[in-house]
Amino acid sequence: MTRDTLGIVAGGGDLPRAVAESARDAGRGVFVLALMGLAGEWVQEFPHETVSLGEVGKALRLLKEHSCQEMLLLGRVDRPRFGDIKLDAKGALVAPRVIAAALKGDDALLRSLVDMFENAGHRVISVTNAAPGLIVREGVLGRIQPTPEQKADVAHGFAIVRAMGALDIGQAAVVCEGLVLAVEAAEGTDAMIKRVVNLREVVRGKPGKPRGVLVKAPKPIQDRKTDLPVIGVETVRNVAASYLAGIAVEADGALILDRARVVEAANAAGIFVMGVARANA
Amino acid sequence: MTRDTLGIVAGGGDLPRAVAESARDAGRGVFVLALMGLAGEWVQEFPHETVSLGEVGKALRLLKEHSCQEMLLLGRVDRPRFGDIKLDAKGALVAPRVIAAALKGDDALLRSLVDMFENAGHRVISVTNAAPGLIVREGVLGRIQPTPEQKADVAHGFAIVRAMGALDIGQAAVVCEGLVLAVEAAEGTDAMIKRVVNLREVVRGKPGKPRGVLVKAPKPIQDRKTDLPVIGVETVRNVAASYLAGIAVEADGALILDRARVVEAANAAGIFVMGVARANA
Repeated sequence: MTRDTLGIVAGGGDLPRAVAESARDAGRGVFVLALMGLAGEWVQEFPHETVSLGEVGKALRLLKEHSCQEMLLLGRVDRPRFGDIKLDAKGALVAPRVIAAALKGDDALLRSLVDMFENAGHRVISVTNAAPGLIVREGVLGRIQPTPEQKADVAHGFAIVRAMGALDIGQAAVVCEGLVLAVEAAEGTDAMIKRVVNLREVVRGKPGKPRGVLVKAPKPIQDRKTDLPVIGVETVRNVAASYLAGIAVEADGALILDRARVVEAANAAGIFVMGVARANA
Repeated sequence: MTRDTLGIVAGGGDLPRAVAESARDAGRGVFVLALMGLAGEWVQEFPHETVSLGEVGKALRLLKEHSCQEMLLLGRVDRPRFGDIKLDAKGALVAPRVIAAALKGDDALLRSLVDMFENAGHRVISVTNAAPGLIVREGVLGRIQPTPEQKADVAHGFAIVRAMGALDIGQAAVVCEGLVLAVEAAEGTDAMIKRVVNLREVVRGKPGKPRGVLVKAPKPIQDRKTDLPVIGVETVRNVAASYLAGIAVEADGALILDRARVVEAANAAGIFVMGVARANA
């Protein structure tokens, strides 16, 4: 059975492109609804239209015209200035509910958008479903294995990010020999990793002596249909530049962009990369 | 009744000096045991001796010689390099237990040191007891009052720092209109406040339009005898420089250094400073 065209509402970052390419490589038709000012130049490679934030009626019409029964919402949407939002009639109708949800946090906002598309007859599917090849599975990906002490830091890190996530704070933390070096909030994972080198040298790694692990997991309240933690070559580079020893993500709860290049970069930098099953994480 | 001489084991930062001065101003004798390389020049103003980390036998002998039945452990002790620790005979005896505690976190380390001094016959008292004038009480300290929305952020912030504290992560967070902008881990409160200006302008304050609050509270597992959150003029300066609107600490669970200057600086910067009762925090 040929599946219908996959609709992708695309914000910023690398994730929408990775999913679109993965679906196309699997032989599926893809239609991209690029969010103005957020989605990158890559959308030119796909059938696409551009909508502003708030043009909800236009978005629903285009998804219908392109027969996108299944769709995804993907990519970063920075909290917009109100002046950047162009509300069409349908947008004005749903705006109060969406704004109320946005004030409760990113996850509430996403859930309200998912509800809106599903109420319009679309099925919002998960990345796991649309692009299973991007999912990190259980086990070590590269050549480098974690030591028992690093595994203990990984376990501690998962306890931390679960607690953070339950409060809608962030998805990532850095732990080194039992000490929590950094916790992600609004700054994002890359900025968090980068500031570890500013800590006193005695608590962190240094050139030739990597220490500490990055742990990343979805928030318990996160809608896995629309958002999952992502690692890529840039993550490996940042981890190496902060002299960390490795990266652990939740197996089946994180995506990897450019898997082959990530593994190659991690091996070259002497960094382990692993998926840890949720029951063990 | 004249109280005996107060012994202060002094690490880095402003807190040991503030407590020593407060006790002296109240008419009490003070003896300072300065930790080598950590306590500042101010110890010259008091009867004092200097000990290295690990000179436990020497420290216990000096406290006994100066008749310090009551004592405090105060101030920052960065995780030392092992090479900086000079163990005397008594130090070598207690080192394994202290190191084991240190690996569990700063609070476990402090508790193990308190136990050690108490087993040697000293009474480790709290700052609340030794220098009650430094304690922040319930209510607004300066001229600026928080808005209802800022009070909601304060309440959210306390929920966050309690959860962080229970995991021995940190004592402080910044919340702005429901969004957690930053959480403190190993970098300390000042570094956390400073990074808020690096966030996208849409989620934070800007010149002339302060937004967001700093919330600071002791960890639930923190030994209030040895450690409490501290705010001072520097905190107000950093908060103002990150365009935050105010500071909230737990009433009876935080110290204020240079109260008059803090209030003056906060009034001048248009920043509220408040103590929130634990039951309401």
